[in-house]
Amino acid sequence: MRILGRLVLMSAIVLTGAAGASMADAPIAIAIHGGAGTIRRADLTPEREASIRADLESALRAGHQVLADGGSAMDAVVAAVTVLEDSPNFNAGRGAVYTADGGHELDASIMDGRDRSAGAVAGVRNIRNPILAARAVLTDSPHVLLSGSGAQEFAIRQGLELVSQEYYDTPQRLEQWEQAREASRTMAAIPVEYRLGTVGAVALDRAGHLAAATSTGGTTYKRWGRVGDSPIIGAGTWADDRTVAVSATGDGEFFIRNAVTHDIHARIEYLGEAVQVAADAVIDGPLTASGGTGGVICLDPAGHIAFSFNTAGMYRGSIGTDGSLTVAIYGDE
Amino acid sequence: MRILGRLVLMSAIVLTGAAGASMADAPIAIAIHGGAGTIRRADLTPEREASIRADLESALRAGHQVLADGGSAMDAVVAAVTVLEDSPNFNAGRGAVYTADGGHELDASIMDGRDRSAGAVAGVRNIRNPILAARAVLTDSPHVLLSGSGAQEFAIRQGLELVSQEYYDTPQRLEQWEQAREASRTMAAIPVEYRLGTVGAVALDRAGHLAAATSTGGTTYKRWGRVGDSPIIGAGTWADDRTVAVSATGDGEFFIRNAVTHDIHARIEYLGEAVQVAADAVIDGPLTASGGTGGVICLDPAGHIAFSFNTAGMYRGSIGTDGSLTVAIYGDE
Repeated sequence: MRILGRLVLMSAIVLTGAAGASMADAPIAIAIHGGAGTIRRADLTPEREASIRADLESALRAGHQVLADGGSAMDAVVAAVTVLEDSPNFNAGRGAVYTADGGHELDASIMDGRDRSAGAVAGVRNIRNPILAARAVLTDSPHVLLSGSGAQEFAIRQGLELVSQEYYDTPQRLEQWEQAREASRTMAAIPVEYRLGTVGAVALDRAGHLAAATSTGGTTYKRWGRVGDSPIIGAGTWADDRTVAVSATGDGEFFIRNAVTHDIHARIEYLGEAVQVAADAVIDGPLTASGGTGGVICLDPAGHIAFSFNTAGMYRGSIGTDGSLTVAIYGDE
Repeated sequence: MRILGRLVLMSAIVLTGAAGASMADAPIAIAIHGGAGTIRRADLTPEREASIRADLESALRAGHQVLADGGSAMDAVVAAVTVLEDSPNFNAGRGAVYTADGGHELDASIMDGRDRSAGAVAGVRNIRNPILAARAVLTDSPHVLLSGSGAQEFAIRQGLELVSQEYYDTPQRLEQWEQAREASRTMAAIPVEYRLGTVGAVALDRAGHLAAATSTGGTTYKRWGRVGDSPIIGAGTWADDRTVAVSATGDGEFFIRNAVTHDIHARIEYLGEAVQVAADAVIDGPLTASGGTGGVICLDPAGHIAFSFNTAGMYRGSIGTDGSLTVAIYGDE
C-alpha cells in the first residue's frame, strides 16, 4: 500500500508536470520600441536616459506579465503600448508632438496575427490611449481605419477615457514646436528628430499567436491632416501567426511607399528568410535606398526577436523566450 | 543630283523610321476598372449598360491618347480616372455614394512606378476630382496621405476646382442611401453592392514607366470617418516599374488586411510569378479565404494586362500593346 500510494502520487506528479510543462514550454516573448533616430549620448542627460530606460522596462514587464499569466498577445501589446502612451518620454499619448496649429493629433493601429484582423485610428484629439481606440475599431466595428472627429466619436461611444488637448502637453515638445514654427518662418527644414518617439510592441503568447501595435503623435508641426505610417496596416504595423509581427518607427512617408512591415512578412513567406535577415533586407535595402530612416521590431512564431534600424539609435527592449530582459537606446548597445 | 537627292531623302526616311520605330515599338497599354460586385444582366437596363460601356471606353481612350502622344503613365492614369470621376455612373467624384449623414466623403491615391512615390487623400468633401488632389500631395508636399479638412485645405491651396456637395448627388445613390438608412433602423445589413463603383487605372508609357491610380466615394452610409483601401498604398494602389501596377476595388477592409496590391507585387518580385498568376493567387487565395470580395486590374512592364476578381462582374476595360480595345462588365465576357 505504501509503495502503491507512492507510485500513484508519482504518476500524478508526472502527469501534472507534463501538462504544466507543455504550457510552460510554449514560448512567450515581447519586444517594444519607443522611436528611432539620431539619438546620441550627448543629447540625453543621465536623468532623462534613466527615466526612458525605466519606462521601457515598465512597458516590457506590463506586457510580459499578461503573457506569463496566459493572456493573449493582443492584450500584451495593448498593455505595453498603454504604458508608453502614458509616459511623457515618448511621442504617443502624453508627450505627443504638436501640430502646426499647436494641438495634438494621434494615430494608432493594432493587428491580430490569428486572422489578420486589424483596427486603426488617425487624427484623434481627445482619447487618452489611442491604442485602445484602435483595438475598439477591430473588435466593435466592421472597419479597419477610422479618421478624425468620426473616429473620436466612435471611441467615445465605446466608453474610452477622454482627455483635454492639454493632457498631451509637455515642455520638451512645446520647445520643439516653437523651434519648428521658427524654422517654418525661415523655410528651414524641421529636424526629423522632432517626430522621435513613436511607440510600438510585438508579442507572442502561449497559444502561439502573434500581435503588433503602434501608436504615435506623428511629426512636429504637421499640417493638412497628415497621416503617417503608424495607422497604416502593412506600413507601420503587421501581424500574421505564420510569419511575423512587426511594428515600425521612422519617416512615415517612406515606410508607406515601401510597405515596410508587409514586405518583411512577404520575404519570410515567399523567400523563407529568417526574421532578422528579412528585417535587415528591407531596412538596409529599399527603405535606405529611397532615403527613409527608421527601424522595426519583429517577432516570429518561434519567439525569435529582431531589431533593425538605419539610425544612430532606437529606444527598444525585449523579454525573450528565456525570460531575459534587455533595454537599449544606442546602436552600439 | 536627282538620284543623290533621292538617296538622301530615303536615308532621312529610314533614319526617321528607325527612330520612330524604336519609339513606336516600345509598348504602351492601359487598363481601367469601375468597380466589382454582383453585377447581373437583369440589374442593368440596356440604356444604363450602354452608358457605362461608353464611359469606360471614353476613359480608356483619354488615357491611351496621353500614352500615344508620348505622355507619362502618371498623366495617363490621371486622365482616365478623371473621366470616370466626372461620370455619374461610378462611385467616385460625381456619382459618389452618400455617407450616413447624407453627404459625400471622397478618397483617392496615385503611385508612380519610377520611384514608388505616392500621394493620397482621404475624406475630402469639395474637390471635384480627388485624383488631382492625390497627385498634388505627391508632387507638392513631402507627405503621402492627407486627410479630412486639412487635405481639402491643401488641395484648395493647389488651386484645384471646388464643387458643392450637391455636385456629387445622383438619384440612384440617393435611393441607395435611403434604403441603407432604413436597413440601419432595422439593423439589417447594408448590401455590399451599395459601394459598387470605385474606379481605377493602370498604365505603361513608352519610357517603360508604370503608374496606378484609384478613386472612390467609399461605402454607402459610412460613418465615423471610415477610410477604406482606396487611399492606402499597398492595399488599394501599388506601382513599381520592376514588377507591376495595380488598382483594387471591393470590400476595402479585406483589401487592407491582406495588403492586396503589395502582395501581388511581392509574389512577382519574390516568386517570379507572371502577373495573372500572382493576381489570381491573391484574389482567389487570402482575399477569398478571409471573406473579402472584389477585384484588381494589373499591368506589368511588358504590357501584360491581368484582371482578377471573385465577384460576378467587374466594370473594366483595356487597350493592350496591340492597340485593341476591350470593355467588359460580366464575368463571362
